[in-house]
Order: sequence, then structure tokens, then C-alpha cells
Amino acid sequence: MSDTELTIDGVLCGAATAGIKASGNPDIALFHFPDGASWSAVTTRHQLKSAAVRWTEQLKRSSPRRPIKAIVVNSGNANACTGDDGPKAAKAMARAVSQTLDCDEHEVLVSSTGVIGVPLPLHKIRAGIPAAAGSLTASGWDDCAAAIMTTDDGSKVFTLPVQLADGSAVGKVSGIAKGAGMIAPNMATMLCYLCTDVEALPSELDDVLQTAVNHSFNRIIVDGDQSTNDTVVLVATGKSQAKVLEREELVQALEKAVQAVCQELALMIVRDGEGARRIARITVEGALSDTDAEIVAREIGSSPLFKTALYGADPNWGRIAMAAGKTNVVLLEEMLEIEVGGVMLFRRGENLAAENLAEAEQAMQQDTVPIRVRIGKGNGAATVWASDLGYEYVRLNAEYTT
Amino acid sequence: MSDTELTIDGVLCGAATAGIKASGNPDIALFHFPDGASWSAVTTRHQLKSAAVRWTEQLKRSSPRRPIKAIVVNSGNANACTGDDGPKAAKAMARAVSQTLDCDEHEVLVSSTGVIGVPLPLHKIRAGIPAAAGSLTASGWDDCAAAIMTTDDGSKVFTLPVQLADGSAVGKVSGIAKGAGMIAPNMATMLCYLCTDVEALPSELDDVLQTAVNHSFNRIIVDGDQSTNDTVVLVATGKSQAKVLEREELVQALEKAVQAVCQELALMIVRDGEGARRIARITVEGALSDTDAEIVAREIGSSPLFKTALYGADPNWGRIAMAAGKTNVVLLEEMLEIEVGGVMLFRRGENLAAENLAEAEQAMQQDTVPIRVRIGKGNGAATVWASDLGYEYVRLNAEYTT
Repeated sequence: MSDTELTIDGVLCGAATAGIKASGNPDIALFHFPDGASWSAVTTRHQLKSAAVRWTEQLKRSSPRRPIKAIVVNSGNANACTGDDGPKAAKAMARAVSQTLDCDEHEVLVSSTGVIGVPLPLHKIRAGIPAAAGSLTASGWDDCAAAIMTTDDGSKVFTLPVQLADGSAVGKVSGIAKGAGMIAPNMATMLCYLCTDVEALPSELDDVLQTAVNHSFNRIIVDGDQSTNDTVVLVATGKSQAKVLEREELVQALEKAVQAVCQELALMIVRDGEGARRIARITVEGALSDTDAEIVAREIGSSPLFKTALYGADPNWGRIAMAAGKTNVVLLEEMLEIEVGGVMLFRRGENLAAENLAEAEQAMQQDTVPIRVRIGKGNGAATVWASDLGYEYVRLNAEYTT
Repeated sequence: MSDTELTIDGVLCGAATAGIKASGNPDIALFHFPDGASWSAVTTRHQLKSAAVRWTEQLKRSSPRRPIKAIVVNSGNANACTGDDGPKAAKAMARAVSQTLDCDEHEVLVSSTGVIGVPLPLHKIRAGIPAAAGSLTASGWDDCAAAIMTTDDGSKVFTLPVQLADGSAVGKVSGIAKGAGMIAPNMATMLCYLCTDVEALPSELDDVLQTAVNHSFNRIIVDGDQSTNDTVVLVATGKSQAKVLEREELVQALEKAVQAVCQELALMIVRDGEGARRIARITVEGALSDTDAEIVAREIGSSPLFKTALYGADPNWGRIAMAAGKTNVVLLEEMLEIEVGGVMLFRRGENLAAENLAEAEQAMQQDTVPIRVRIGKGNGAATVWASDLGYEYVRLNAEYTT
């Protein structure tokens, strides 16, 4: 994906190397919206929130309708579990950006990712911000995507047009993301920044973003649900020239595009999940509600026994049944169906593994293995994506010591 | 522990090789209580219950006060996900025992563990039961413990006296157990059989057993919470000659002994957890309730990131904080304390890892690493035991294919 494809009218981006990361890789990313932009954010529900997350949440609470002028992100330090110094450092980051870009500090969102429990090296960040500002350009997306990386193998960018039902484009959505994964003592976080040139109100962006996150980042399972710093931001510059008469149609088109971009970025994250060899797309059907289906799908996707079988390309339907039955969601053995890679292995009390094993083993060699489980007679359904668990995961997480 | 130490008056045990296990190891265990015994059982809450579990549950519902005469256990086949044939096979097992030992089939508890989704080979079991009966002896405990094993590295037996407050013994409790762990397509299960010669009513045994299980088997974390076949049984023969005037004192003494035996067996299970190198004893304090503390302790013990750090002996307090904050239980950063191996690494917003790291690394080399986490100002506390996650776990679970 080329940088010009990613450009969004009204958005400048840049990055710099401030020396926060021990690796010496770029570690400051800066978005600038010179004419302002409406925005929304979804932040972690973790009990220990990074000071950066609290800064963003406070802006959202106190002045949700005030346009923002910038977003600054540092990698290499999470500014989490940093006591009273944390909020001061987050505010100082916003202030440094406001001074550099000549705006108010309350027009600047802040994110951090990296080591936890270590004070933010503010002097490095203060030097890095003007450097990042000096590199601002309409096509700096890839640089920003690289600067927010921690344990990711590669940077993650994606863009799509915002299309009305008749197929006509009325704008674009571009996004960058970084994945979830921890290497001691770095605590990596899920971060995502999405920009569109469509015009939208903050309240519209709230709905669009929450729906998109629920159907993308909240449906992937690497090794945990959330971290102290998780943040997804959506900003709208309103620079698109396209006129749409029907407000509702525009918002629907935006929602569709944002969700699709989030899903692509989420899949990049799960595929990049700490040493992942392959991923599973787990669909649970026949539940009494979509929520029940999601609970069961998550339990399967989180099961170490399922994840090691996925790594070993072992079509072990027993482990799927085991994980599926562990929750409080009612599961009827006489309705239970388990399909692996499109191959039926268990159907309503009947074990079909013997005759279908070779075919299922073949199907499990795919990069993405579809798993389908029917648990009852209801209409509730949900899909989650999960990475596998293999030697590389253990190597990354056990052998890298503090 | 010698077989004579384990003997319980009124209990005979034996085992046989029926050819259910592919390995050719013993796979039928039989307990006989010639004069009957009162009993209680705690069974899995899994949504897919083995037919054997359903047989036991049905006896407990329909005739809880009727003494039992025998318990039969087969390993190598779980009789779970076996459709309509499952309950018939479980009943046929009970009947085969009742015919061999000349009692009623409703006086026989049944357990199964092993492969799921495969019909129970009844002809083999029918041949094995008389063979096991032929080997019945007061000192057959070790043979029984070996016959119920599936993926366990070693058999698990333990015994303790039932002691009053003044230290006088009024009886004994002996138990055998097998651990939780899955090797495709074998689905291993947690099974435990406890016998005492103390006299106790079924209702007393219910309370004693539920409390003991809550503080032992329900506090260990290998790789999942429960399986289709998990069963813990406590039987009391009443053969002890000791007279105790105070009923309440006797029940308290029994509860103490049963809980201690269960805790020892539970620790043997977690230590034997699929390739475990070391285990963690995780204590969470300062919660608003014991339940809240247990939720947080479980989240830490289940976290693959914590478990790999444990394997790597990495005193990574960040991963502990991360897991602890993932639940809905309120966690106050300003009260948060994290101690690893007795070494304080994080205290109320202050990261002490730098100065204490070497000491903590040393402490993590222990077989059992104590982890203490304070999350707030409350009085709720709980302890769980968790195994680590390393290469051996992946090898066992990914490379063994169906």
C-alpha cells in the first residue's frame, strides 16, 4: 500500500527517533490536523489505565465536541504504573505538541506504549516532538505506522474508500495499527488511528467507532484481552468535497468503511501475534443470543489446548468440545456440530473423525483455519479470530528476560 | 507412601488391565466396600457431562442416603460425546460390577477418563471387572492409582490421620487422584477418590467434600478449568472404633483431614501438569471479598504471559499487573503491591524492580514460587496454584496428533 493511497485530505503525519526505544528505531509519531478535526476514541477497560489513556478520556469527557489539532504517540514507554508522575508527563507531552504546532494542549490526544512502571523520559520526548513536526507531510503514514511499533514484526496500514450504496466514493478512511503482545518488561498495546475526510459529528463517530471496534479488535485473541494502554481513535476532517444529501446514508457508508479497515488491521495484528504460524476463524452458531455465541467462541479461541492443536495442525475436535462446554452457556450434545476447515468431525452425538481425519488434517494446514461449532437450536452467532500457540510464543515470552 | 499406610478399614481395592488403553497399562480400578459406605461426590459443571458423571449424579439425586458398595473407574475412554450409547454403557458398567460383587447396580458409582467421542468397549470392560475383583485387597491403593492415570507422569496417593483438637487420631483419610491434561484425542480428567473409616452422614460428607474441593482442586490451574468427566468422591465406612462424643468436633476433624489430603493431591496434579517445570502459589489480598480476590488470582494463574514468564523464571511484575487488571474487579494503582518470591517489585506506584531484580530472579528458580498481590484496601484474600507454560507443554499438546 503506497503512501499516496493512504493520504487523507486535512491530515499531515510525521515521525521521529527520540531515543526512547532501546533499539534506536523511530519512537514518536505525530498526526496534525491543521484545520481541526472531530474525533472519537475507544480506550481500554483495564483497571490500570496508562496516564496517556486517562488524558484522552478526560478530553472526551470534558470537551467531546471540541475539534482536535493533533495526536502524539510515543513507543518504548507506556507511562503506566508510574504513580503521580504519570498524568503530569502525559500533560507535558500534549503541551509540547501544542507549543510546536501552535494550538491548545486540550486539542492534543496522547498515547504511549512500551515498558510499564518506568517514568516517561520527557526530555527525549520534548526533543523528539519538534523533529516529528519537521517531518510532517500528507504521505507520512508508513513512518507513523513504524514509529508506533513495539514487538510487531511489521507495520500495519490500510485504507478503503467510503462508498455509498450505489458504489460512488464520497471519501476515504485510512488507518494504522500496532499489535498486542508482550515482551518483558515491554508491555505492548493495541493502538489504532483512523482518519477520514468525510464530515461527521463526534456523536456519529462514537457510534461508528464502537461498532467497528466490537466487530474487529474486540474479536481477536492473541494472549489476553486488553492492556493498560489500548486505544483506538477515529478522526474526521470533513475535507471531502462530495455532497451527500442523506445524513444517514453517509454515516452508514462511513461505518461500513471504518469497520472494514478495522477488520483488516485486526487480522494483521492477530496474524502478527507473537510467533503465530496460523490463525483460526471461529464461528459459533445456534446459541440463544449473539452474546452467548461470542462467550463460547472466545473460550475456544483462548484455550491453550485448542491453540496448541492449531499450531500442530491437529484437527482435535475433542478440545474444541471441551473448551466450548466450559462456560455457563448451555450446550446441547444432541445438537452439537463441529466442523474444522469445512470438514464435519462431530455431528449430533456422532464422531465422524475416523472417516474424515485425513481431509481435516489437510484443511488445518491453511493460514486461516475456519472452525464452525453449533451448540444448540438458537439463532445467536458470533465469529472471533485467534492465533495459535507454539514454540515461538514460548521462546519470545519465556526466554527474553527482564 | 506404603500401601499399608493407605489402608482404610472397610475398603478393598484392586485393578486390572482390560486393554482399553492403547499402551497396555492397567485401565480398570475397583473399590469395594463389603459392608457399604456413605458417600458424597462433586462432579464437573461442564456442559457436556460424560455418561459416567451423569450416572453418579443420578444416584446422588435419587438415593443420596443409600450406602454404596463399589466404585469402578476405567481409563482410556471417557464415555463422553458418545450419544445415546453413553448412558447405556455407564449403566452396563455398574451392572457388571454389581453382578461380580453381588450387590445392586444402584450401589455402584462409575467413572471414566480418556478418549472422548468413542463408544466404550464394553466387552473389554466386562472382562476386566472380574479380573479387578479378583485382585481386591486392603492394600491395593497404588494399583488403583496407577490404573486411573492417563497423561500423568506418576501416580498420586496420600493419607492423613483424622485428628481431634487434642491431637488424638479417630480415623484416617486416604485418597488417590489423577491430573488434568489433554493429549489428543485423549481428554484427561481430574479424578479423585477419598475414603475414610470415620462414620459420617451423607449430608456431613457433602459439606466436608464441597469445602475441601473449593480449597484444593478448584484452586489449581493447569490449562483449563474443568472437563466433561471431573469427579471427586468421598466415602465413609464408619469402621473406626474411636468414639467421639461431640458430633461437631468429629466433622471438623474430618473436614480438616479431607481438605489437607485434597490439597496435597491437588498440588501433585498441578506439579505434574503437562511438562511443568515449576508452579506458582498466587495470593491476592486487599480485595473487597474473597471471591473478588479469587477472580484476580485465577486471571493471573491462567495468563499465558504470566505462565511463560514463570517458566523462564522471569520476575516480570508487569505481566502480573497486566493480568490482575484485566478483570472487572477494582484494582487501585495507589494500593497495588506485587511481591515475587518474597521480593517486593512494585509498591504503591513505585517500581522497585531495578534494585531488587537479582534477588527476585534467584527466588523464581524455586519449585514453588510465591506471588503476592495486594489490589486494594479490603480484607478479601485467596490463593491459587498454577503451573508454568513451556516448550514441553507445546510439545505434548501440539506434536501428538490424532
